[in-house]
Amino acid sequence: MDIKQQIKLFIEARSIALVGATRRTGDGHNVVENLLNYGYAGKLYPVNPNADNIMGVKVYHSIGELPEGIDLALISTPRSQAPQHARECVAKGIKALIIVAQGMADVGGEGMRLQQELVKIAREGGARVLGPNTFGVANAFMHLNTAFVNFEIPENPIGTIAQTGMLFGGTARRRLMGKAIDIGNTCDIDFADALEYYVDDPQIKLIAMYMEDVKDGRKFMRAAKKVTRQKPIIVLKGGRTSVGANLTKSHTGSMAGRAEIYDAAFKQCGIIRASDFDEMDDLVMGFWYLPPPKGRRVALMTNTMGAGILATDACTNWGLELATFARETKERISRVMPPWLPVINPVDIGPANFVVPDREKVIFECMESLLTDPGVDAILFILPAGFDKESAWGVEVPNVAKKLAAKYPAKPIVGWVHSNDVGENSAHAYMTDRNIVVCPTVDRAARVLSRLLNYAQFREATKAEE
Amino acid sequence: MDIKQQIKLFIEARSIALVGATRRTGDGHNVVENLLNYGYAGKLYPVNPNADNIMGVKVYHSIGELPEGIDLALISTPRSQAPQHARECVAKGIKALIIVAQGMADVGGEGMRLQQELVKIAREGGARVLGPNTFGVANAFMHLNTAFVNFEIPENPIGTIAQTGMLFGGTARRRLMGKAIDIGNTCDIDFADALEYYVDDPQIKLIAMYMEDVKDGRKFMRAAKKVTRQKPIIVLKGGRTSVGANLTKSHTGSMAGRAEIYDAAFKQCGIIRASDFDEMDDLVMGFWYLPPPKGRRVALMTNTMGAGILATDACTNWGLELATFARETKERISRVMPPWLPVINPVDIGPANFVVPDREKVIFECMESLLTDPGVDAILFILPAGFDKESAWGVEVPNVAKKLAAKYPAKPIVGWVHSNDVGENSAHAYMTDRNIVVCPTVDRAARVLSRLLNYAQFREATKAEE
Repeated sequence: MDIKQQIKLFIEARSIALVGATRRTGDGHNVVENLLNYGYAGKLYPVNPNADNIMGVKVYHSIGELPEGIDLALISTPRSQAPQHARECVAKGIKALIIVAQGMADVGGEGMRLQQELVKIAREGGARVLGPNTFGVANAFMHLNTAFVNFEIPENPIGTIAQTGMLFGGTARRRLMGKAIDIGNTCDIDFADALEYYVDDPQIKLIAMYMEDVKDGRKFMRAAKKVTRQKPIIVLKGGRTSVGANLTKSHTGSMAGRAEIYDAAFKQCGIIRASDFDEMDDLVMGFWYLPPPKGRRVALMTNTMGAGILATDACTNWGLELATFARETKERISRVMPPWLPVINPVDIGPANFVVPDREKVIFECMESLLTDPGVDAILFILPAGFDKESAWGVEVPNVAKKLAAKYPAKPIVGWVHSNDVGENSAHAYMTDRNIVVCPTVDRAARVLSRLLNYAQFREATKAEE
Repeated sequence: MDIKQQIKLFIEARSIALVGATRRTGDGHNVVENLLNYGYAGKLYPVNPNADNIMGVKVYHSIGELPEGIDLALISTPRSQAPQHARECVAKGIKALIIVAQGMADVGGEGMRLQQELVKIAREGGARVLGPNTFGVANAFMHLNTAFVNFEIPENPIGTIAQTGMLFGGTARRRLMGKAIDIGNTCDIDFADALEYYVDDPQIKLIAMYMEDVKDGRKFMRAAKKVTRQKPIIVLKGGRTSVGANLTKSHTGSMAGRAEIYDAAFKQCGIIRASDFDEMDDLVMGFWYLPPPKGRRVALMTNTMGAGILATDACTNWGLELATFARETKERISRVMPPWLPVINPVDIGPANFVVPDREKVIFECMESLLTDPGVDAILFILPAGFDKESAWGVEVPNVAKKLAAKYPAKPIVGWVHSNDVGENSAHAYMTDRNIVVCPTVDRAARVLSRLLNYAQFREATKAEE
């Protein structure tokens, strides 16, 4: 069986043995309950010596009673029992084992011994192990989630690989994942294996990873290089500092290597690095929703020049340039501006609202002029969301932006929608449409454009090599 | 009249002439309407040749008809009329003039000439000018706001000085201000003048500034040094890059100086620099709500070790250290932990929730142990807000944290409350209490602690000098 087929047994499992399934329901921790509610269509085989059925599903009293031909075993028993249960599953011909228990290599000593025993059992039986110390796998396209915490994800084209349950469940604010593999302590299945599965998965357009360490660097780079020629890989790396790196030992039982080595490897592979959870959010949204910019020339549009100047600083810091506008662009914009205001980049539409009372028209005229200017590679707009949900800004800005983004799909539009909390919520309205990504700060908006451009250049360069 | 008295005429005005007052109501741009609704108790003298009253307030047809003894004139007429109106106000003995119009030094040429004329008129009449290109002043303690955009602010102990209307209205997400002075093009009243007013204002505990340029560096540093020995000054500087600096010319008519010069001056004065609007938010909250840490030893508390490692990286990057726990601390925490889990820093309370079903107890025992450990200078906690508002985490975490923060007010507590959007909203619940500040990322939480510590050290050093 090649590695893709092996990973499929996990993430596309059509039948699952749930060893250590609980009878308790209603607290979100019962995987049988969660899968039934989620609408998983595969077969479930809960194993529990003290139960006969869980929510109407027949329960087996021992692994020995299970039928043959089950794709996956989710072993959720305490760490000391895990090896014996793994052995019995392997004896039943199960080739894919998820070991949930913590306290293995992550604490060392007896835990380390137990983990080594698990690997030996799997090797001898021709099975593969995911974990230990893992949530397992999730696949929105099959309504499958083995996590012992209940959450359902939409069919996003995002493949996650994580060494922590936290990022397995999507990024900080949004559940930005469609499939996920939590490799946990990584005793067997690793980043490279998971990448081999995602590389030509038609349901997955980009890959998001939370990484602490990679054991086999060559294997990882080989797999990563294959992927980044087709799909972006975004990685958030834990243990960047030496203090943090020491700690990874007590998380996944491994030592994170030196930051510089990872940086160099990521660069060589064209992997995009996120500095924190927020950037992970931004980059996943950016690579999912935005077309790549053709160059570094950005047009800024703002309702206040103070913010326009901060945006200029942000663009400059991220290696972008302020676009020079064509004559036609300037002329068209000047028609909705007060006569005393010169049209420059950033375009300040604040004063125009006191000249042309139709604010939607001002936004439309400016934004369309910029989108059609051949000297502009990307738009960065800064506008208030208004002080309440019904305010003019809060309704007009998204309306215009969405209309224009649909009309000119080849140019990326990023935005900073400021104001109060209500504004931040309404800002999310933008993100439901293609070609627009709104960030909570202008620095983050400029950074997204910069990363998109870098990756587009990497892709160009690798194409030229081939 | 000393500078404090002069600034008081603006920000504590008891009577205001509103030159160019509009009759149109209901759109938030009528300052007379806004002030009446806000509950301003001073006297209003609108001037408009075409109106007799605005919302029941008597309107004067010309400045000449106004009575003597008015504190402040808010001149909202087009730029070409501003000098004449200023001249007439000065003739009426008004010593404080706010010039709202844009298109002055910010566009150059004729605008520059008009601005110079305004300054000359004021000088000759013994008056001071705020602006032009300004919202004017706001003072929550008097229900006063001269901005032509309607917003009301609570009585926060925060004094704002801004060169843009945007920051005048508080930081990006929250209206974190109690008094504000928008110095606009800064033709006369400048940062130093505004600082002289705030320095011993008992209503103001900290100062937030948005700055593009300072004309008289010596004067500014003299005023700033006086202030920072008593209250923190946080500054967001626009025009940090050379491209951005060039643009400030078309915003406030001045050239921002080289970034390094400002950096050195800020450092010498003990001014805290915010890198963007988000950091401005964080620092204002931090300096307002938190006691200064006594040292750099941080205790981390998390529900997932992956996030704990990212927090360790963040602390290390910001010059903080991971605290070593006392024996008693470790013993108390271990009583609510699974037996196989060693108690280290970060404290991972995730697994404990499967051992001790009373989650509130786990959080309480861990957090109180850390707050009472003499080897811990500050707490940084990382917890989920839960997937909905009613979830256990979303209720228990704020409850425990608030209780403990009230009991141990001498140690700062910062937090990163993650999960989905709902979580971010409920995170705000924390911030209503003293001694706790919650940030949207762990990097921002560590940065707040680091800045608090830096400022505390600056204060210690300046005290030693005296």
